Amino acid sequence: MKNFRKNKTFIIFILTIFLSITSGPLFAGGNVDKTDEKIQSSQNIEAKYVFLFIGDGMSMAQVNSAEIFANSLSNQDIQIQKLNFTRFPVSGLTTTYDASSFITDSASSATAMASGNKTLSGVINMDTTKTVPFKLITEYASDKGKKIGIISTVSLDHATPAAFYAKAASRSDYYGIAKQIVNSGFDYFAGGGFAQPKGKEKDQTDIITILTDAGYTYVNSRENFDALKSGDEKIIAVNSFLQDSAAMPYDIDRSPDDLSLADYTRKGIELLSKDPEGFFMMVESGKIDWACHANDAGASIRDLIAFDQAISEALAFAKQHPMETLIVVTGDHETGGMTIGFAGTKYTTSFNNIKAQKMSFTAFNTKILGPYKAATPKNKAKLADLLPGLKDAFGLDFESLTAFQKEQLELAFQRSMGNEMVRAVEEDQYLLYGGYEPFTVKITQLANQNAGIGWTSYSHTGVPVATFAMGAGEELFAGYYDNTEIFQKLADAMNISTAN
Amino acid sequence: MKNFRKNKTFIIFILTIFLSITSGPLFAGGNVDKTDEKIQSSQNIEAKYVFLFIGDGMSMAQVNSAEIFANSLSNQDIQIQKLNFTRFPVSGLTTTYDASSFITDSASSATAMASGNKTLSGVINMDTTKTVPFKLITEYASDKGKKIGIISTVSLDHATPAAFYAKAASRSDYYGIAKQIVNSGFDYFAGGGFAQPKGKEKDQTDIITILTDAGYTYVNSRENFDALKSGDEKIIAVNSFLQDSAAMPYDIDRSPDDLSLADYTRKGIELLSKDPEGFFMMVESGKIDWACHANDAGASIRDLIAFDQAISEALAFAKQHPMETLIVVTGDHETGGMTIGFAGTKYTTSFNNIKAQKMSFTAFNTKILGPYKAATPKNKAKLADLLPGLKDAFGLDFESLTAFQKEQLELAFQRSMGNEMVRAVEEDQYLLYGGYEPFTVKITQLANQNAGIGWTSYSHTGVPVATFAMGAGEELFAGYYDNTEIFQKLADAMNISTAN
Repeated sequence: MKNFRKNKTFIIFILTIFLSITSGPLFAGGNVDKTDEKIQSSQNIEAKYVFLFIGDGMSMAQVNSAEIFANSLSNQDIQIQKLNFTRFPVSGLTTTYDASSFITDSASSATAMASGNKTLSGVINMDTTKTVPFKLITEYASDKGKKIGIISTVSLDHATPAAFYAKAASRSDYYGIAKQIVNSGFDYFAGGGFAQPKGKEKDQTDIITILTDAGYTYVNSRENFDALKSGDEKIIAVNSFLQDSAAMPYDIDRSPDDLSLADYTRKGIELLSKDPEGFFMMVESGKIDWACHANDAGASIRDLIAFDQAISEALAFAKQHPMETLIVVTGDHETGGMTIGFAGTKYTTSFNNIKAQKMSFTAFNTKILGPYKAATPKNKAKLADLLPGLKDAFGLDFESLTAFQKEQLELAFQRSMGNEMVRAVEEDQYLLYGGYEPFTVKITQLANQNAGIGWTSYSHTGVPVATFAMGAGEELFAGYYDNTEIFQKLADAMNISTAN
Repeated sequence: MKNFRKNKTFIIFILTIFLSITSGPLFAGGNVDKTDEKIQSSQNIEAKYVFLFIGDGMSMAQVNSAEIFANSLSNQDIQIQKLNFTRFPVSGLTTTYDASSFITDSASSATAMASGNKTLSGVINMDTTKTVPFKLITEYASDKGKKIGIISTVSLDHATPAAFYAKAASRSDYYGIAKQIVNSGFDYFAGGGFAQPKGKEKDQTDIITILTDAGYTYVNSRENFDALKSGDEKIIAVNSFLQDSAAMPYDIDRSPDDLSLADYTRKGIELLSKDPEGFFMMVESGKIDWACHANDAGASIRDLIAFDQAISEALAFAKQHPMETLIVVTGDHETGGMTIGFAGTKYTTSFNNIKAQKMSFTAFNTKILGPYKAATPKNKAKLADLLPGLKDAFGLDFESLTAFQKEQLELAFQRSMGNEMVRAVEEDQYLLYGGYEPFTVKITQLANQNAGIGWTSYSHTGVPVATFAMGAGEELFAGYYDNTEIFQKLADAMNISTAN
């Protein structure tokens, strides 16, 4: 079938040229012209402005539950409200396995998209021997004169953003990765901060010093961020409040003082779009994944909605440059084994339970459980003390729980307070809590279960992700293909040769 | 974008006509002709032969795990082996929610595809008041003169096959549904038998008598089946061995005497394809779903592979009729909340554990556990007695299990033997065993977990399914759309007007 498709492309091309020579006047109507242009744009004109949006940990369960949630905000009907990106004209299916496992990590999956190569879990843009570096789509785009923007809700040295400017044998080499911003010379880095700004041992020159010495401007207040304007070059823009591991706060925890992923995306467009060669911008929502690791659907869904709002900034730009802009939205893998359905709730769901959630599991730990633990001797700790907080934060009414659920929550509470468990098989503990704060993870699991959302893991899973595309070259992203092919499709859309 | 796409279709149509008038000789090359034909076939020529393959309970986790399994048969590399249908040129994403819930049942999802309408769970081809019947894609196709074939691995009166010839306020009205075969006048029904051949109370005229009186030929031996030939009309072909609820056996349990879904599909093509108007054939693999309800990945994956072999029969036919054949493959919903990943195995999978399985959970109940229970007083029952059977049937070595897993299995064994449980909260029981034989469901869950496959439910889940298409009209099935749209896409491909 493939040759057939190429032939089809070819015949449309030939027809277009033939008609432009022989029968121009016949097709002079605006509508027809537009279609003609569209065919050319898709097949022959290159994408000048390219957005690659990556939802970390985002597969169809995450996307579809955000659509159900979005619908639930305005009505109780059984229908979905499509997101900006799920309305895109093209969708594809993308496999994500890496060279180590059918279940990838974010380093190897970002390597696949950035370089077109499979590698081992944990490796960034180097081959499976960890010695041969790969050339990146951002490097090709930069060679072509495009401006490069890299935005993430997590730290800028985290695996996904790192894979668009750095090469490292280990994703854990945060400091070594961050230093590679200098040599990249890329134009706009924004969102989270740096996980190890002075290195693992905290004995190195501060990364901000290195970056500013190299000519980057570091901005970490809203005032200075707002003042950035078109023509400003080499920017590192970091949110003033970093919640956990130098990441932006979960959107559910975001205060009016915090910038959003949409803010960083809009500013990136403002800064980079005047360049005559256009730009390549990678925008990652990294905490969809973090929330799913912790089995917290409420936080994950709201970060996905915020991600979609960032995509709406790209859409607004694309409307001004419809023939030259490509927007691609994908996930790097699924996280948590999320399903819209749980054994105990059978065929029902109740997303009102998700709407009732007011903060992430992280904020609950910081704001409610942490202070309580600090103030309460473990032999005085009573679950009853925290029930009001539970209700406020998650809309979870203890009395509405089943006997079995109450028992699970009590057990987790005792465990979090450091009291003996009824049983303490290590394996059982991992299955129950996955290394998270037992009480908090059990709260989100029970709240999610009551909403009709189930989880199978605290890690990633191997199910393929969905890829959506619109604009110049969109048709390249239809079909069922591997994540390594995203690299070549992006290159093709930009008319970049990657041979040699 | 939608109007734009229509315009694109229109301009290609105009160009094609224009060139066929003005420049025929210029495009006389074989290659170009073929492409030209292809464009016509896709855009304007109707699909004469249409296959709709439905994998019941089949979403991307089921499909992708079958691809991983298929790869594991020949090598240990981390890569997938694509199936016949996952190589199709077009893929789409399809939502499945019904009028009752975000988690559909098979009656309402089949109604969506067969009639283009959402209805309540449990209802077949009637509106949400259960009074107004819908007109079916098979009825439109039959009106147009096409032959109709309906094939399923489960009973012919089960929800999915039923929705392509019957209308019923309740899917449980098996006898009332089966009788509607007579009025349908459809041509070929094959696979499983009838769930209630003499009605709920077993006091009605046998359905086979009713059908043969109405002119149908009933065939339930391989010899008579093999003797069926092109021109034979009104056939009911049922497998001689019906394993459970009048269904064909799981493919993993199929003996050389049993016919396969591929056999029934090939015969359907032989019987129906001589008709000058072509055919519409619905082929369901119904026990992918049943195995997933029971959290038995090994049985589900092998039924999915058998489903793909049935699709290869359609592909062989399509090669002979490339311009006139459309093959669509979809799922009606996901079942079980299957994920390629489980908390306990984190980032690893081991599909060799799935390869080691030799029979379905149903066959284990019938052949091993059932006889043991019948022969053993409950106070004499010892798990040790069944460990050899466990090893033979599932490749599960008890000694290799963790302490926690051993404990779970012992508990389930005692429960299956009717002994007291350590704990017996009813809710807990449901979460643990979902109403299945406790020992058997725990075996498949543990075997699946060790393979790196997790489950969240014994019911369906709401995650969208993937739809694949090739042939005449294939491009209609790209994008992200609701299952109700499959009806209209099929109608459009057959050039059937559903307005009136």
